[in-house]
Amino acid sequence: MHAHSAPEECGGRMGGVLAVDTIVAVATPAGQGGVALLRISGAEAYAVAMRVVSVRRLAPRHATYCQFLSLSAEEGNEEAQRVYIDDGVATFFPAPHSYTGEDTVELSCHGSPYVQQALMRTVMAAGACMAEAGEFTRRAFMHGRLNLSQAEAVADLIEATTPMQHRLAVSQLRGGYARHLSALRARLLDLASLFELELDFTEEDVEFANRGELSALLAELEGSVSTLLSSFAAGNALKLGVPVAIVGEPNVGKSTLLNALVGDDRAIVSATPGTTRDTVEELLTVGEITFRMIDTAGLRASDDEVERMGMARSLQAVRSAAVVMLMGESRESVKAVEDILSAEVLQGKHVLRVLTKEDMSAHPQYGALGQTNGWFRISALMEMGLDELKEEMVQAVEHTAQGDVLLTNERHREALQRVEEALHRTATGLREGFPTDLVAIDMRDALFYLGSITGEVTTNELLDNIFGRFCVGK
Amino acid sequence: MHAHSAPEECGGRMGGVLAVDTIVAVATPAGQGGVALLRISGAEAYAVAMRVVSVRRLAPRHATYCQFLSLSAEEGNEEAQRVYIDDGVATFFPAPHSYTGEDTVELSCHGSPYVQQALMRTVMAAGACMAEAGEFTRRAFMHGRLNLSQAEAVADLIEATTPMQHRLAVSQLRGGYARHLSALRARLLDLASLFELELDFTEEDVEFANRGELSALLAELEGSVSTLLSSFAAGNALKLGVPVAIVGEPNVGKSTLLNALVGDDRAIVSATPGTTRDTVEELLTVGEITFRMIDTAGLRASDDEVERMGMARSLQAVRSAAVVMLMGESRESVKAVEDILSAEVLQGKHVLRVLTKEDMSAHPQYGALGQTNGWFRISALMEMGLDELKEEMVQAVEHTAQGDVLLTNERHREALQRVEEALHRTATGLREGFPTDLVAIDMRDALFYLGSITGEVTTNELLDNIFGRFCVGK
Repeated sequence: MHAHSAPEECGGRMGGVLAVDTIVAVATPAGQGGVALLRISGAEAYAVAMRVVSVRRLAPRHATYCQFLSLSAEEGNEEAQRVYIDDGVATFFPAPHSYTGEDTVELSCHGSPYVQQALMRTVMAAGACMAEAGEFTRRAFMHGRLNLSQAEAVADLIEATTPMQHRLAVSQLRGGYARHLSALRARLLDLASLFELELDFTEEDVEFANRGELSALLAELEGSVSTLLSSFAAGNALKLGVPVAIVGEPNVGKSTLLNALVGDDRAIVSATPGTTRDTVEELLTVGEITFRMIDTAGLRASDDEVERMGMARSLQAVRSAAVVMLMGESRESVKAVEDILSAEVLQGKHVLRVLTKEDMSAHPQYGALGQTNGWFRISALMEMGLDELKEEMVQAVEHTAQGDVLLTNERHREALQRVEEALHRTATGLREGFPTDLVAIDMRDALFYLGSITGEVTTNELLDNIFGRFCVGK
Repeated sequence: MHAHSAPEECGGRMGGVLAVDTIVAVATPAGQGGVALLRISGAEAYAVAMRVVSVRRLAPRHATYCQFLSLSAEEGNEEAQRVYIDDGVATFFPAPHSYTGEDTVELSCHGSPYVQQALMRTVMAAGACMAEAGEFTRRAFMHGRLNLSQAEAVADLIEATTPMQHRLAVSQLRGGYARHLSALRARLLDLASLFELELDFTEEDVEFANRGELSALLAELEGSVSTLLSSFAAGNALKLGVPVAIVGEPNVGKSTLLNALVGDDRAIVSATPGTTRDTVEELLTVGEITFRMIDTAGLRASDDEVERMGMARSLQAVRSAAVVMLMGESRESVKAVEDILSAEVLQGKHVLRVLTKEDMSAHPQYGALGQTNGWFRISALMEMGLDELKEEMVQAVEHTAQGDVLLTNERHREALQRVEEALHRTATGLREGFPTDLVAIDMRDALFYLGSITGEVTTNELLDNIFGRFCVGK
């Protein structure tokens, strides 16, 4: 066999990632296509690539046309027959200006399943290990190219199928609140160090840390954290789709409206398989915002046990919704439904009142199609008045999508929750004059969980968790 | 809106490809991955790309890091807000040294379904049309970067899932017989021109074309064509998998052998869904060669009508096989099956005689496991002797895989069949002294079909057919 390290040697790194290894993976989506891309990263990336390509040199960042060849079968005999795998383009990205921050070589080959497999095998025989899920981005994080929150945004960006998911991922990728929290943490860390120093001088009753400055900073941090935390519900709804419940008496045309609304945009819906939760939910994207439209069973005042059970489910849908569309053929019908739901259930929700079947011209007294005094007149069947309705749905949620301060990551939410608690305990301790060592413990907690968001504090378990959800090749 | 041509303007080109358009497509496999690649090709490729990237210039073949941005919403106001789509790398491949032979720009972005879609939409808004299936390769052909046979090999290469499919595609991509046929055609064309010239001087009874030279060339062409044609059966078997029928009396362990043989390599099998024809066929790849292993119903001399019907199907499998594996627990059993099949059925096939269940040590008189005097002794259950058997299967077909002269393309086979007939008629006509104008017709036929293989003669229908089977983006 040959002198280069065999793929088997990489077996031992499973679970414990060694940043010293040179890794390789197919970076493009799995399957067959015109082109596929292999990415090699690590200190030996250039050397490994040179064993595979037909050219003697790869100039930095120059897309070099070459052949990809198997390794020489005979050790030390470079002229021995090498098997042709493919023609393609090799590009060398020297450290530190590559995605990972390491030397990286990208090999662009034909998108054939066999060629991808054969080239992977050859690059591994040439000394690279197969990359684990997310390992390229993990290395980018370890080399300071991204903070942890940005690294997570890369996974979100790749998984994005709606405009809003894309926008939220991009916002997180840019740093946004994470950088802001990071800066606040740095200031807290400075003060905390002085505070900790006092612990070494407990007998002497000194105060290195300015208590007033500390309290002000704690308040500022608490404010930022609490703003972020309160944006989670809205942020998550925007990420997963804003739930809109369509409610009304039986047979007022709720399903017809759903079909009419979703109809034109069904192509977008079907492009995201698996996102529709059940048969009565449909995704509808208007502009940047994706809505989860929830059709419900008809509501009416009834003593029938079975009917009340069906209605209980409708009520559940309304409770989980951000927008409630109350539908009826008359204002009386709409108001009847509103009464059944009760003000308590509708509290805090955007309520749209919709008069349907207006093509029947049954109610000329309500005026023209479109919105009048908060009432929408539509004809789902004739597809009239729908644009105004969509526009209003967007308006209803648009203000929540403003700015960079939307929290959408569940891990960050959990961490911030703990930060908030620790900050609160710290502030209380300071105010109440608790012993320095007790307050220091709370402060360390706050620093730890703050740091865990951007990766200033990490554990291997945390990193394994985060990067494990990436695809291999990223 | 903006000044660039809208996507709708490309609608008119469906069916009639205009090489003047600048086209764009996602070149990487469909779906989600770390990285995706958009390819823009055409005279306006650079100008189109510059409207989408954040940098002012792309140096040739330099992988340039940049942002991808939507077009400015306001015409003439380049500073108006552009929406951020993604970070990525743009590389400009100036004509003629690109895949298509045209100016080409590749945009490498995150492999997110949304990003791919948004970037496609933006590039189209910037003036590119969506490429049709195979249009990049079709342009490569039209600009002389590939001949037609090589262009077809690109599709084969991309679809390759087995080593042999890869090898055959690579061989065709390199030119091989197509270039050889092309050279012969050029010589025939020269002589044919002189021959046609005679038609203008029919009254004068002149001979511009040397009849001896012409006959010799026709014979040479006939030889090449006939060699190629006769290689089709073997070439096609190698491409689709060499059929191997496993035959024997009932309960001698045929299925056990099939499972034992395929077992280790099942991963490769399952990587090619849809290739297994029915429940009793399995793909087995040994080295470069893929076999279609066909399990058959047990054979035995019988008067039972139902049993004879089952046996008829086994016989059919044997007739279609290139290799027949005769299995039994004793030499008598194997010979009994051989008698049932008859020498006529086995003629021209590679026959392997296999003694099974040798772990029972029932027949120590036959010697050690492995091959002895043309008999294989194996234990499927203990997985002993299987490597020798596989080796022999490879040996049985390996000679057919030698050289570059394997015909595997059905279109080429049909064309060559017509070439052969036309050459034969031409030669006969010359020999028998047929009138020049009649012979000329046959000669034109030969030239036409020869030229259709490499694309020296094409029709739009032919090109539509060939490139229509490509994926979009290649």
